[in-house]
Amino acid sequence: MSASPLLDQLIEALRCLPGVGPRSAGRIAYHLLERDREGALQLADALREAVEKVGHCERCRNFSETPLCAICSDARRNGELLCVVENPAQLAAIDQATHFRGVYHVLMGRLSPLDGIGPEELGLDRLEERLREGEVRELILAVSPTVEGEVTAHYLSEMARALNIRVTRLAQGVPMGGELESLDSGTLTQAFELRRDY
Amino acid sequence: MSASPLLDQLIEALRCLPGVGPRSAGRIAYHLLERDREGALQLADALREAVEKVGHCERCRNFSETPLCAICSDARRNGELLCVVENPAQLAAIDQATHFRGVYHVLMGRLSPLDGIGPEELGLDRLEERLREGEVRELILAVSPTVEGEVTAHYLSEMARALNIRVTRLAQGVPMGGELESLDSGTLTQAFELRRDY
Repeated sequence: MSASPLLDQLIEALRCLPGVGPRSAGRIAYHLLERDREGALQLADALREAVEKVGHCERCRNFSETPLCAICSDARRNGELLCVVENPAQLAAIDQATHFRGVYHVLMGRLSPLDGIGPEELGLDRLEERLREGEVRELILAVSPTVEGEVTAHYLSEMARALNIRVTRLAQGVPMGGELESLDSGTLTQAFELRRDY
Repeated sequence: MSASPLLDQLIEALRCLPGVGPRSAGRIAYHLLERDREGALQLADALREAVEKVGHCERCRNFSETPLCAICSDARRNGELLCVVENPAQLAAIDQATHFRGVYHVLMGRLSPLDGIGPEELGLDRLEERLREGEVRELILAVSPTVEGEVTAHYLSEMARALNIRVTRLAQGVPMGGELESLDSGTLTQAFELRRDY
């Protein structure tokens, strides 16, 4: 028996957060009600505003509240370099960490025919149109080195090569600070094979 | 540079959740926008409703959206047994796990004079009035065995004994499924001293 149906409703609603089960939902609800009601109200507003107003950029498919996202409509960006990422998190990571100032295409997934995710679901038809426009000179593949990522990379490289566009892919190897003995054998093998003069 | 200020605002607002840093806030925001907009809207409503309507029960201080919480206003509850817990999470845990069907007092904290948390901050003045009313026959202390919990327990037991009310406290010892060798020495020592005939 609970003392407050609205509290129960909040605990239940918190379970839409990834990785939050009944126990941590309870902890979060108590925390917000006891210590941060202001933050909870701001979160409520931010959730509603984002859900109602954030859609996808017509051009790159990234999250955007305007038809063209801030990156695609930024004239200082170099439209000759187009980087393909799997999701907005990868885009944000690359844009914050690197000096890349080209443009993006966000797949919002990986090719997976068995799950009904084909080229159209990833916006590859629109990407091909974009490549045909002629501005893009290099297609940078920033897809994860997983089976589905490899399939996606292969598909994209065929598409670009047919249009005589250079295709590159993020280097693979030993991560910074990675200890060789704790690397998985796949990474280690690849880093060995791709060794460079030093 | 971000593609969507509203998305940034959501990521920032998500950091009011305990234990959520910038990275996981981003992951949560992307998850909600990509896969569960419906859940996000329900969460927004639940947060707002709970913050606006959930206060504290006049009698036991538990979270409640009515002046008296559902437990305090339930006539089938045994008002002779009053269990003191530190917070609503402990109350929910006890109420769900045990067969206890008495009533509660929720401290919403622990006595800690150095932090300015005295008897009044924990509603102990009102608890004393309640005990003086004469219905309560047993005060069950369900406070955690920490330093502050011990201070609180001592204070409460003095209060109840002055009114000739029986005071009990949750048993301490080896937890169910606990392996003796992995118990802390304090628990083990106490369990040893409090050993019972078998």
